[in-house]
Amino acid sequence: MDITLKEAAQRLLDADHILILSHQSPDGDTLGCASALLRGLQSLGKKARFLCSDPVPRKFNYLFAGIEPQEFSTEFVVSVDIADRQLFGKGLAEYVDQVDLCLDHHGTNGDFAKERYVDAKAAAACEILFQVLKEMQVEISPEIADCLFTGISTDTGCFRYGNVTPRTHHMAAELIELGAHAADINREMFDTKSRTRVAVERYALQSMTFHFDGKCAVLFLPISMVEELSAEEGDLDGIAAMPRQIEGVLAGVTVREKPDGTLKVSLRTNQPLNAADICAVFGGGGHAAAAGCAFTGKSFEEVKAMLLGEIGKQMERCGL
Amino acid sequence: MDITLKEAAQRLLDADHILILSHQSPDGDTLGCASALLRGLQSLGKKARFLCSDPVPRKFNYLFAGIEPQEFSTEFVVSVDIADRQLFGKGLAEYVDQVDLCLDHHGTNGDFAKERYVDAKAAAACEILFQVLKEMQVEISPEIADCLFTGISTDTGCFRYGNVTPRTHHMAAELIELGAHAADINREMFDTKSRTRVAVERYALQSMTFHFDGKCAVLFLPISMVEELSAEEGDLDGIAAMPRQIEGVLAGVTVREKPDGTLKVSLRTNQPLNAADICAVFGGGGHAAAAGCAFTGKSFEEVKAMLLGEIGKQMERCGL
Repeated sequence: MDITLKEAAQRLLDADHILILSHQSPDGDTLGCASALLRGLQSLGKKARFLCSDPVPRKFNYLFAGIEPQEFSTEFVVSVDIADRQLFGKGLAEYVDQVDLCLDHHGTNGDFAKERYVDAKAAAACEILFQVLKEMQVEISPEIADCLFTGISTDTGCFRYGNVTPRTHHMAAELIELGAHAADINREMFDTKSRTRVAVERYALQSMTFHFDGKCAVLFLPISMVEELSAEEGDLDGIAAMPRQIEGVLAGVTVREKPDGTLKVSLRTNQPLNAADICAVFGGGGHAAAAGCAFTGKSFEEVKAMLLGEIGKQMERCGL
Repeated sequence: MDITLKEAAQRLLDADHILILSHQSPDGDTLGCASALLRGLQSLGKKARFLCSDPVPRKFNYLFAGIEPQEFSTEFVVSVDIADRQLFGKGLAEYVDQVDLCLDHHGTNGDFAKERYVDAKAAAACEILFQVLKEMQVEISPEIADCLFTGISTDTGCFRYGNVTPRTHHMAAELIELGAHAADINREMFDTKSRTRVAVERYALQSMTFHFDGKCAVLFLPISMVEELSAEEGDLDGIAAMPRQIEGVLAGVTVREKPDGTLKVSLRTNQPLNAADICAVFGGGGHAAAAGCAFTGKSFEEVKAMLLGEIGKQMERCGL
């Protein structure tokens, strides 16, 4: 059931022994929400704990610095930035039907919780958490400000994307005033690349191929490369954005080979091309500008030929 | 002589036939200021013109779209974002001593104008222009908002750097409310790379060398590469940031060979290293985190050895 922001804050004020859940493959927003809420609840003298199906990536460790783990028998479960049941991950499967309160900013939210507050206009779930914490009269410490700023900054590509609203910027201003270390966080999130990441980017730039007069770029990330470079998930983060970033490219294709041989396709398009329509042909889906599909039992060359065929057809229909 | 923001606005209101000057090698901030002021003055029925020593880079053409060139005999000269005499460039040398009003955000402003308003806390000169235009009661159109947003976004690396203040974010929010096409501008400025740029980055990633256990990275951009790739200034923009972006690198050195054989060094450091101190040894200067120097009649290998020697000495002094 949908409830108001005020009601959501009241539920948290009324509760104790609160378990906070983040989505699997956690990012800066779900972790920023969880750590900010954890700190806020503990500052009110409540007991709170955090769980996630996957480990917290090293670069986000600072969000939880100084928080003492509290053991208790859970009385209230709140999920942050979790859009759907399957995003809980294997480690949290037991909680999927036990969520008392869901705080989220995905318009597609799966309505799995007893009560939820969803604001699809929020660029980051941390925008919602900021409001909830203020409604709860939590004093926003510099540490909480860092957590909330991290979520807002990472979910907007450092204020770059179309999801940014005036409110996003006003909140960033307020968080800096409250002590958020904005420049340090941004440098760590956006201006620091691991040596492995550099090697992956070098590989990507070397191996990318161009088609349809430069309007389509294709990048293949074979498992052999990933293993050879000992690349981890974090080193491959956002690589799928590279092909479409090149001037003139309207369709950027990234094909990643998984350990089981599956080829996972990520397609990014600019108007007038529609990524979701192209991926739908192969049983996939997504948004107009970013969609995906997967192939098993096919070689990269076969998959590439099929994708280029569909992309070419759509280009023709668009008069490109 | 230093004047107040109010006085600066009054000078512009009192003037007509106003010539607006940008600095050489113009960037988004100086061009954002100039185009916003040009539009603002013309909206008040005044005659205004814009001059720059170098051509406006293609990607900034939209700032001036729809502005009609006005011919007149100059009565008032205003410089925007010009920190010092030598930044006027050859094409504007005749105006260096004729500036009536200087609007700038560089703490090091050379005080070349009859009157000036300098606010070193402004992340971008466009922050100042926004205030001046509001003080002048100019109606901020979506076009003017685009110009001002461009300056603020580009001079802060899209709100990434340490120069961003709460005011910067509040202004960004206000400009989006006024109709600035923030996401489109950011995509054009930060998420679009020319094919040549991609080739330059590939070259950079391939040729970078690491020293002192990965704490120093050195990048050489020979003139032969620049010519072979037909790289223009815009394609090399910001390349000097690449070495220090790599995890663990405290000193990022970029050496660029100029057509006359001069080797221009750009040094970026993280604490505790001090770029200005290292470059000072070679007659250069700059800030603690970013400085430069130049060598003539030396080979890259010689220059590299000299730089690594100094960097090594400073590392030792810092106990690294």
